[in-house]
Amino acid sequence: MNYPNGRKKSIPLHGSDNQTKSSFSNRGMTLEDDINATNTYYLEMNKAIIHKKPTPVQIVKVNYPRRSAAVITEGYFKQASTTDYNGLYRERYIDFEAKETKNKTLFPLANIHEHQIKHMQSIVNHGGICFLIIRFAVYNETYYFPAEKLFSYWNDKLDGGKKSIPYEKIKLDGYLIPFQYQARVDYLAIIDKFYF
Amino acid sequence: MNYPNGRKKSIPLHGSDNQTKSSFSNRGMTLEDDINATNTYYLEMNKAIIHKKPTPVQIVKVNYPRRSAAVITEGYFKQASTTDYNGLYRERYIDFEAKETKNKTLFPLANIHEHQIKHMQSIVNHGGICFLIIRFAVYNETYYFPAEKLFSYWNDKLDGGKKSIPYEKIKLDGYLIPFQYQARVDYLAIIDKFYF
Repeated sequence: MNYPNGRKKSIPLHGSDNQTKSSFSNRGMTLEDDINATNTYYLEMNKAIIHKKPTPVQIVKVNYPRRSAAVITEGYFKQASTTDYNGLYRERYIDFEAKETKNKTLFPLANIHEHQIKHMQSIVNHGGICFLIIRFAVYNETYYFPAEKLFSYWNDKLDGGKKSIPYEKIKLDGYLIPFQYQARVDYLAIIDKFYF
Repeated sequence: MNYPNGRKKSIPLHGSDNQTKSSFSNRGMTLEDDINATNTYYLEMNKAIIHKKPTPVQIVKVNYPRRSAAVITEGYFKQASTTDYNGLYRERYIDFEAKETKNKTLFPLANIHEHQIKHMQSIVNHGGICFLIIRFAVYNETYYFPAEKLFSYWNDKLDGGKKSIPYEKIKLDGYLIPFQYQARVDYLAIIDKFYF
């Protein structure tokens, strides 16, 4: 009973840093846990309706004793074609991806897939609010990084440039997300500031 | 190798009529197939970015020979907490559920869950465009039915009223969605008319 990223939970794959497989163990909540708690809080406060999309699974075999007890006995993780989170806030469409890194000096662009970039570009073109949430685990700092800034680093990479975004640039071009007791990754505070 | 609703495909559960389990067999495309094809067309035309959410699966056991080949060996279908489709069109947040019925005279409200109604009410309150797509398979007619209309039938039901929406009312309060060659369920044509 092993999980793809070594975690003992029945959830993700996403949001984990695919650079560092060995874990610090028990560092507390993951970024995904914090964002889910934040979204639940936003929902309960009737502030925004933002959900994580289910992990896409290719279902191959299902054992079907009764309808209520159908058991998937063979399935595979599929790559997501979009970002992990989307929803609605103050009449605006919200769309983002969340990534945690244990790197101290940079955010590796390998964490993001080409088709996710395309999706994010479409969202921006159609008037959605789109961004990355990046956590530097070693500093316990979480940043709001606008999709528009990400695109320019991505294009640099395609042109043979760096395959990462330096931590210092994320501090500069991104916005530190405040930690709140209930909205533990209070990204709407940043959106309020820049869009409303 | 059976699937919960007797289909031989590695996809849904959703969108199927839970009233009629026996199928007409090979009636051609399901509503879900048609909507997915429509959304793909919208995406390719750069008209809208609307996706079906993955089927939520509770993953319990994963066999992990190599990361790239992780096999889910025990999983269960979970009930979705929201609707199946959402996205972005002309700067507006779009959210809908799609249901097909073989009934000739009514749409059973048992097709919709309480928490989906709550979700849809939130979406409307926060300025999203929210609706049902209902297909009457025997007539091969597909309707756009505004969430606001659905709520009043739902409230009637809660007050001890009918547990369904009569077909005639759906014709009256809903809008027949035109069939197009590529946009086979061209629901944006209805949205264009009523929101822009």
